[in-house]
Amino acid sequence: MTAVGIDAVEVWTGNLKLDLAETFAPEKGDDPEKYTKGLGLRASSFPDSYEDIVTMGANASKELMDRKGLTPDDIGRIDVATESSFDNSKPISTYIAGCLEQVYDGDFHHANKGERKFACIAGTQSVDDAYNWIRAGRNRGRSAIVVATDTALYARGDAGEATQGAGAVALLISEDPDLVELSTHQGYGSADETDFLKPNQQFPSVDGKRSVQVYLARMREALEDYESVAGDVHIDDFVYAPFHTPFPGMVRKAAALAYRHVTRDTGVEEELAEGIGRQPRRESFDDDGQYEEAVREYMDALKETEQYRDWYAGTVDPTLSIARDVGNWYTASVHLARISALKTALETGRDVAGESMLVASYGSGAQAEIHGETVQDGWEEEIAALDIDEQVADRYDLSWAEYEQVHDRHNHETDSELEEFTAPEAEFVFDGWGRMGERKYTYVE
Amino acid sequence: MTAVGIDAVEVWTGNLKLDLAETFAPEKGDDPEKYTKGLGLRASSFPDSYEDIVTMGANASKELMDRKGLTPDDIGRIDVATESSFDNSKPISTYIAGCLEQVYDGDFHHANKGERKFACIAGTQSVDDAYNWIRAGRNRGRSAIVVATDTALYARGDAGEATQGAGAVALLISEDPDLVELSTHQGYGSADETDFLKPNQQFPSVDGKRSVQVYLARMREALEDYESVAGDVHIDDFVYAPFHTPFPGMVRKAAALAYRHVTRDTGVEEELAEGIGRQPRRESFDDDGQYEEAVREYMDALKETEQYRDWYAGTVDPTLSIARDVGNWYTASVHLARISALKTALETGRDVAGESMLVASYGSGAQAEIHGETVQDGWEEEIAALDIDEQVADRYDLSWAEYEQVHDRHNHETDSELEEFTAPEAEFVFDGWGRMGERKYTYVE
Repeated sequence: MTAVGIDAVEVWTGNLKLDLAETFAPEKGDDPEKYTKGLGLRASSFPDSYEDIVTMGANASKELMDRKGLTPDDIGRIDVATESSFDNSKPISTYIAGCLEQVYDGDFHHANKGERKFACIAGTQSVDDAYNWIRAGRNRGRSAIVVATDTALYARGDAGEATQGAGAVALLISEDPDLVELSTHQGYGSADETDFLKPNQQFPSVDGKRSVQVYLARMREALEDYESVAGDVHIDDFVYAPFHTPFPGMVRKAAALAYRHVTRDTGVEEELAEGIGRQPRRESFDDDGQYEEAVREYMDALKETEQYRDWYAGTVDPTLSIARDVGNWYTASVHLARISALKTALETGRDVAGESMLVASYGSGAQAEIHGETVQDGWEEEIAALDIDEQVADRYDLSWAEYEQVHDRHNHETDSELEEFTAPEAEFVFDGWGRMGERKYTYVE
Repeated sequence: MTAVGIDAVEVWTGNLKLDLAETFAPEKGDDPEKYTKGLGLRASSFPDSYEDIVTMGANASKELMDRKGLTPDDIGRIDVATESSFDNSKPISTYIAGCLEQVYDGDFHHANKGERKFACIAGTQSVDDAYNWIRAGRNRGRSAIVVATDTALYARGDAGEATQGAGAVALLISEDPDLVELSTHQGYGSADETDFLKPNQQFPSVDGKRSVQVYLARMREALEDYESVAGDVHIDDFVYAPFHTPFPGMVRKAAALAYRHVTRDTGVEEELAEGIGRQPRRESFDDDGQYEEAVREYMDALKETEQYRDWYAGTVDPTLSIARDVGNWYTASVHLARISALKTALETGRDVAGESMLVASYGSGAQAEIHGETVQDGWEEEIAALDIDEQVADRYDLSWAEYEQVHDRHNHETDSELEEFTAPEAEFVFDGWGRMGERKYTYVE
């Protein structure tokens, strides 16, 4: 069977930066470590006044097409995943295709375009749709572009304000991929949950405590469902485990639970037992309260063991490096985590070709999906070509007053004009409104 | 290769009716034939105060599961297509699954849920995703439920007000389907168009004239793209041609253009030439204006020929029977057209097992998709089981004043309470708001 998977990726960050330690924490009167240690975040990416989900998605897509030498005729499908859409009918993919048609010969009239919505998991769902489309033999030799693009803004003063972010990842899904091969195996954990909503509103209503519980519960279900088709997961099967990263602190919690789950009844549990005992089993306790207390104690001890710390440092921590500097990119987040991991491998000179990754996606509302990927021989070249470090370094560092202005500028309920902070160069920009309320875009050389 | 396609369908109409000839036309001071002949519509379906896209979609899904004897464990995927969503993050499929979990043993935690948006074409895109998922071997023997559900409301006084509608179609996508088998062949015509938008708004902004042109242009591209993979389409290849039906008059225009396209350079054109001449060719005219005038004259003459009238009466008119009484159901519209056609076959005693249909879907913004389907042996039983005639007949007939009230009730910008006009029975109902602004639902016995 021909391999199908992710042939290439490109990243586009919002051109502004909100520094959490230097700018956000002082304004809130907080210890900077609340953000840098607690959440695990140093800064958020923010869109400049001429940026939005279309420009970031189109810019990432153009980088992808240019680098891979693609023309519109090579692309049979363009799907956008977002929870920041500004139209209830017209999909963002049509705007992005319209942008790209301004700069390439030919057009995308033959390409199936669409938009998926399910909080932060829709990017992975769109990758799956593209994979299935190729596997179903409907691609006519063409590839799919999947764009995960979001402006993850919260209402001013909301608890989520420190976890904001803005950016896009464009993924090329092809036969014989250069980056990672996807497997048919998937595990799901999906339930009707009220943890994070945007009912006819731009900024989310969030039940933070519930959201953390739901993330962990759905991930656990997805892992069990994945094991039911792919066989038991062992802790050493995977070189990296990229998770959806609303903030790195969330992944710390999820990783520890996943470790406990997959090591249960294995030699790893036995090895650890000498130091911290075996894992608590529900049947050994009189009630849920006692059991949960024992689990908490075990988890605290587990996280201090050398085995766990080594595993976390090698398998999970490398997936968080980009998120620390850019915040939550919603649909693009787990795809940034994959890139972070492979970028660490490249930087530390580790050859991961042929190795497997366990990828854990999540969307509030709520659904987790877990699948395996195999790193392909072309991975080093693909990852070396990315300019994410330069993009992150080049962002304009907002003062607090500037942050307030740009937040207003992107609030759909305010109608504020704002001079841009950065000078767009070789990128698509938002260029004003059309007569039917549509957003218009131009390419700036 | 195992057949994959639509195993079964179920329909749920909004429980209210706005009569265009008796109620709408008199209020507007119009001749009723403006609607009944011009648009081809007698009435619109409307949602009662306790109905919305979730209740209609859940009710159609429950009918589908009950009739086919399905349990949650039989379903691996629930996708909703809509352009009437009320949340920018949480997908409608999670609400529908939550409804169904109230009435069935077991749950859908193992099922991948999602939501697609691309004006009226997203229902067909979701069917395609489900087909591809099965063809990719990821379904583990399970089927997919695709729900196309919309409340197609326009602002009061908008030109589209006469074409409103509200309803849902639920489709079961399976291996060895009972209703129609889908083929891998698809044709696309897709461009970045500004014909119909909902920019951060519930009711659409429509450029009516442009919308008609775009529908026809994209359909023509899709037909040519389809022929490039499936071979030339001949006028007798298909027993029915269900089109997306914003109103039956639109399909009359599209059908004539499609007929002209597929008969060009065929014996049909030769046969017709004696009476109305051969089709105008651009190269025979000095300028576009002269050519377009000649095309208009040819089309007017074509539509009066016996050959065309017989073809239209046999192949297209039967697809419009339900739309005439319920209006535009957006994402569900083309799926109602398929049902209308097969229902006509059943009522006229025509055996269409093994026959092909050419299905033409469309979404503003804009994209057309054309594909072929083969009617399966079980079609008669599937279609005979539908109760759409009873549902349509049982709707409450609104007075003008009542219509104004219920339109306000469904306007997201007004906060109006309204007593229901009908008594819900054996159906899901909207039951008020939760603490985070979420909509809540109950099953009424």
